[in-house]
Amino acid sequence: MPNRRPPRGRRPGGGERTREAIVEAARELFAEHGFAETTIRAVATRAGVDPALVHYYFADKDGLLVESVDLPVDPSVVLGGLADEPGPVGEALVLRLLTTFETVPGALERMQALIRTGVSHEAATTALREYLGRTVLLQLSDLVAPDQAELRATLVGSQVAGLLLGRYLLKLPPLADAPREVVAVAVGRSITHYLSGPLD
Amino acid sequence: MPNRRPPRGRRPGGGERTREAIVEAARELFAEHGFAETTIRAVATRAGVDPALVHYYFADKDGLLVESVDLPVDPSVVLGGLADEPGPVGEALVLRLLTTFETVPGALERMQALIRTGVSHEAATTALREYLGRTVLLQLSDLVAPDQAELRATLVGSQVAGLLLGRYLLKLPPLADAPREVVAVAVGRSITHYLSGPLD
Repeated sequence: MPNRRPPRGRRPGGGERTREAIVEAARELFAEHGFAETTIRAVATRAGVDPALVHYYFADKDGLLVESVDLPVDPSVVLGGLADEPGPVGEALVLRLLTTFETVPGALERMQALIRTGVSHEAATTALREYLGRTVLLQLSDLVAPDQAELRATLVGSQVAGLLLGRYLLKLPPLADAPREVVAVAVGRSITHYLSGPLD
Repeated sequence: MPNRRPPRGRRPGGGERTREAIVEAARELFAEHGFAETTIRAVATRAGVDPALVHYYFADKDGLLVESVDLPVDPSVVLGGLADEPGPVGEALVLRLLTTFETVPGALERMQALIRTGVSHEAATTALREYLGRTVLLQLSDLVAPDQAELRATLVGSQVAGLLLGRYLLKLPPLADAPREVVAVAVGRSITHYLSGPLD
């Protein structure tokens, strides 16, 4: 591996700003090329900093990954106040989810990066599992029936992950092209059932 | 990249055997390291053949991928005769699916390789989409209601993919550890609904 360094003059000041620029560059590169093909050097170049600075803030690529595994969308936007909406809660959840991914700039790319790195690298898998457990599944706790609440939450998570995979990553027709409302009714019924229907 | 070659004497005769050895080596390496990090050279080394032979049979890595994207399990084992079984068809489908992946040697590794490469590489995504369309979703045609049959098939596919992702790749507890029968009842209900329940 060549030992060239970017010009030292390009290292910007301002710790928090630099840190955020590195995380943002890592997110973009993980989304574009996946975790395995992204190097610390490439992240540094994209962020306009010295690679040593990336090591200083994040130790290694795994550290950078954990930091960059962050919410493609704010969970409260998708899950907040769902119980108060009219109609089946699962349908409302799926409609919010799809609307968010299809209208919030960058949300789709971040989710794709999350799934791609999450299934392809052990450290990413662990990070994604912890992330799902701590944030998304916890956010479901208001909606989920108390019996077997954790199993219910992971069933919801698996259906949501499968929907995202089929609609946005594999782009399976006609699931990929169906109107949001059609998908919301069809998949929402399963989500509602996982949340509060009988599991046995 | 070094230009070493494996000894020519290691090239085995027997076209079909050689071809199969190359595909098998590629499958193993795609599963272990993912598509992006696997080189033609590494495949050749694992198969004990000259890299030129890999190019001769498969042109390039994408060609090798299409050949190696092959069934982790025989679809007829999972889907054949399901309509004749007692009880809800979705439950029977999920139970067969999980039992197959948890008992057939190598099935889990091949499925993991399929999902990992399928979400992380454009050529793999296309191959996986075509593969799902041609084989698995076609196999569902006996079970699926005629109205919106294709949407139903992709809904089943998305729930199955999400289940495999959550149970085997992300290993989300307690979905990852729950008894097969429990998962079959819970997820099977959604599958049955996607196959033949009202979608609106």
